[in-house]
Amino acid sequence: MVSDVPGTAKKRVRDPEARRAAILAAARTVFAERGYAKATIREIAQRAEVTHGLVVMHFSTKEKLFLAAVPGTRDLADSVQGDVEGLAGRVARSYVARMESADSADPFIALVRSAAADQHSAKALLRAMREESVNAYRAVLEGSDVPLRVDLVGAHLIGVTFSRYVLADGPIAAMSPEELTHYLTMSLRGILLGCPGGDLSATEAASSRS
Amino acid sequence: MVSDVPGTAKKRVRDPEARRAAILAAARTVFAERGYAKATIREIAQRAEVTHGLVVMHFSTKEKLFLAAVPGTRDLADSVQGDVEGLAGRVARSYVARMESADSADPFIALVRSAAADQHSAKALLRAMREESVNAYRAVLEGSDVPLRVDLVGAHLIGVTFSRYVLADGPIAAMSPEELTHYLTMSLRGILLGCPGGDLSATEAASSRS
Repeated sequence: MVSDVPGTAKKRVRDPEARRAAILAAARTVFAERGYAKATIREIAQRAEVTHGLVVMHFSTKEKLFLAAVPGTRDLADSVQGDVEGLAGRVARSYVARMESADSADPFIALVRSAAADQHSAKALLRAMREESVNAYRAVLEGSDVPLRVDLVGAHLIGVTFSRYVLADGPIAAMSPEELTHYLTMSLRGILLGCPGGDLSATEAASSRS
Repeated sequence: MVSDVPGTAKKRVRDPEARRAAILAAARTVFAERGYAKATIREIAQRAEVTHGLVVMHFSTKEKLFLAAVPGTRDLADSVQGDVEGLAGRVARSYVARMESADSADPFIALVRSAAADQHSAKALLRAMREESVNAYRAVLEGSDVPLRVDLVGAHLIGVTFSRYVLADGPIAAMSPEELTHYLTMSLRGILLGCPGGDLSATEAASSRS
């Protein structure tokens, strides 16, 4: 598929960015509908109206395509970036904005729904998401326990996703997006920065204000 | 099964407390092995070496038996009770002690594992657990948002249970019980009391110190 002058092709691919976006949109739909294990690159390519080869050229594997399609990984670095004080609020707003716009058809929801039934895929995907997340958070947080804190943020978001979008029952499911952002900010602050006071000396990781 | 003089029987039931404990232990095992939907009172009775009728007499329904057997509901009021400042630590210690002693064979783990596949049971059980929890927390916390906070605590513990005991992968799974208690205390503080400082006015619910 690649010509002898790669990188200089101009007319052959009309709008690579639009095709990439179409692949990602198709991937979101197929992962959300089928779950990770049953989704195939072939079906995603068909939905996006591109060839199988083009999907592989852009994303190489199903796992990489999932990680690019799932919210919270690709743009995570952007929402994390900034001062420590506002970190929890930025992460909360970014999570809520993405999940609410996805209208319950989101690959992360599919992952949480099928994780217990397909532990092998879930472990691999969550490991990859964890790694990307830790790298992003390290730009803002210091301390040897950043991986632990990031994993707790992940567990919290898995639990909230489960309550609000999978079971869709109870107070978390009934909250407005604004309320959810408010309460998530509060809980993520506790996890990421620790709370001053009490018997905890867990605030040292929050001291890396830039 | 009940004689004409209920409450005064002495010799017929040798040790009612031991039988009740045997039923609960059997229930924990069967719920953990089969999940809620597939577990039957009949099998639980057989494991406990008591009659089906005795289980019904003690617990009336499978749902009530589950709620009695699952850690964190029956004794929740005890661990919640006390001053607001130490609340998060007490809840964290109680959760960790129960989950670690259960050796991954716990009905709550089974519930989290099977919740996505059996949403109907999961909703009913989590609703009942939520109700009991809210009642317990109201003894220590004030504010109209106590149900929201309690639901967030539940979501957090679902996410942590999922990472540590269902997928059993990553930093949360690798932590020692002491580390887990430390970090859970920190995140539960954020959820239950909010963190002072920042742009949140979420600390008013923490002002009900007795």
